[in-house]
Amino acid sequence: MSIVLIDEPLKDVLAAFASPDPTPGGGSASALASATAVSLLAMVAGLPKTRSNSEEDRAALARVLASVDRMRGRLAEAIDADTAAYDAVVAAYKLPKGTDEEKAARTAAIQRALRGATEVPLGVMRLSAEALAAAGAVAAHGNPSASSDVGVAIALLRAGLEGARLNVEVNLGSIKDDAYKRAVSDEVARLSTG
Amino acid sequence: MSIVLIDEPLKDVLAAFASPDPTPGGGSASALASATAVSLLAMVAGLPKTRSNSEEDRAALARVLASVDRMRGRLAEAIDADTAAYDAVVAAYKLPKGTDEEKAARTAAIQRALRGATEVPLGVMRLSAEALAAAGAVAAHGNPSASSDVGVAIALLRAGLEGARLNVEVNLGSIKDDAYKRAVSDEVARLSTG
Repeated sequence: MSIVLIDEPLKDVLAAFASPDPTPGGGSASALASATAVSLLAMVAGLPKTRSNSEEDRAALARVLASVDRMRGRLAEAIDADTAAYDAVVAAYKLPKGTDEEKAARTAAIQRALRGATEVPLGVMRLSAEALAAAGAVAAHGNPSASSDVGVAIALLRAGLEGARLNVEVNLGSIKDDAYKRAVSDEVARLSTG
Repeated sequence: MSIVLIDEPLKDVLAAFASPDPTPGGGSASALASATAVSLLAMVAGLPKTRSNSEEDRAALARVLASVDRMRGRLAEAIDADTAAYDAVVAAYKLPKGTDEEKAARTAAIQRALRGATEVPLGVMRLSAEALAAAGAVAAHGNPSASSDVGVAIALLRAGLEGARLNVEVNLGSIKDDAYKRAVSDEVARLSTG
């Protein structure tokens, strides 16, 4: 049973990434990078307004704050969900394979678990791409004194998107359903260039 | 007084980044990204060895593990050090400026604090660049099954390097010592392209 990273002290989270156990790994690290980035976007969107803020700026920032808060919750969940999905793949590979029936059940369980381990980083890619669009709105309407925070958020979101892509592709490589593979590959390509 | 991020539960660290208080901000977030990345490199360098590992691989991984563990400690410290350095700048700007003497003391304190707030992200840049070199050694000698973790680490280190650069430049812009500014700018340019 893995620890619940989101409840652990930050130093223990880093130690868990550093330990030779395979989880938590790059998938959770990518979700953490994007969760940190949308948190920075929430900070800038919520900064005390300057006098020069127009009514349009205020309305745009309120909208973006609501949407990045939602993304923050989902990316925070993905940190632990990625670890759980990987652990499920490992558990499926350990199922018995003595009889033909056991072999078939094991193969089905592995394929199910691999889909789960694909869906979590795919969700991180979707949220990171959505947050990159939100970063544009924060940069356009937010306090210019925090522009370096928006710049850091963009760099972290690109890293989260790229890291999640690597994790989607690793799992997709072992999935046998060709229609599913094609659909996911197409979406990955769209999200990567978007 | 800011909280000590490294001791806080991860969910509270994300909430602190999301709060409208200016700290923690992009500097601490960049240090966190690079600290996460070197933790992943430590995991891969410490993975149980495969049978195909040569003596040379084992020796190279042991060396790189020692060096990424050291970087991990220093990047973890930088998460809170960046916040403290920024808070020191804010405190210096609040010093009294009623008399000429007070004005001179305030200016000197601001300049000292700005140097501190430049040195912390500059240190994160140095460590991130050093870790990118270590990632090459991990990729060359480490277990190929963890290559996506190395890929995530590289993406996060590039984001940490870029985010720290943005924070160096924001602070450098208010520093008056031209020789210091030139020296830092030159190092930033070297580290960014290295």
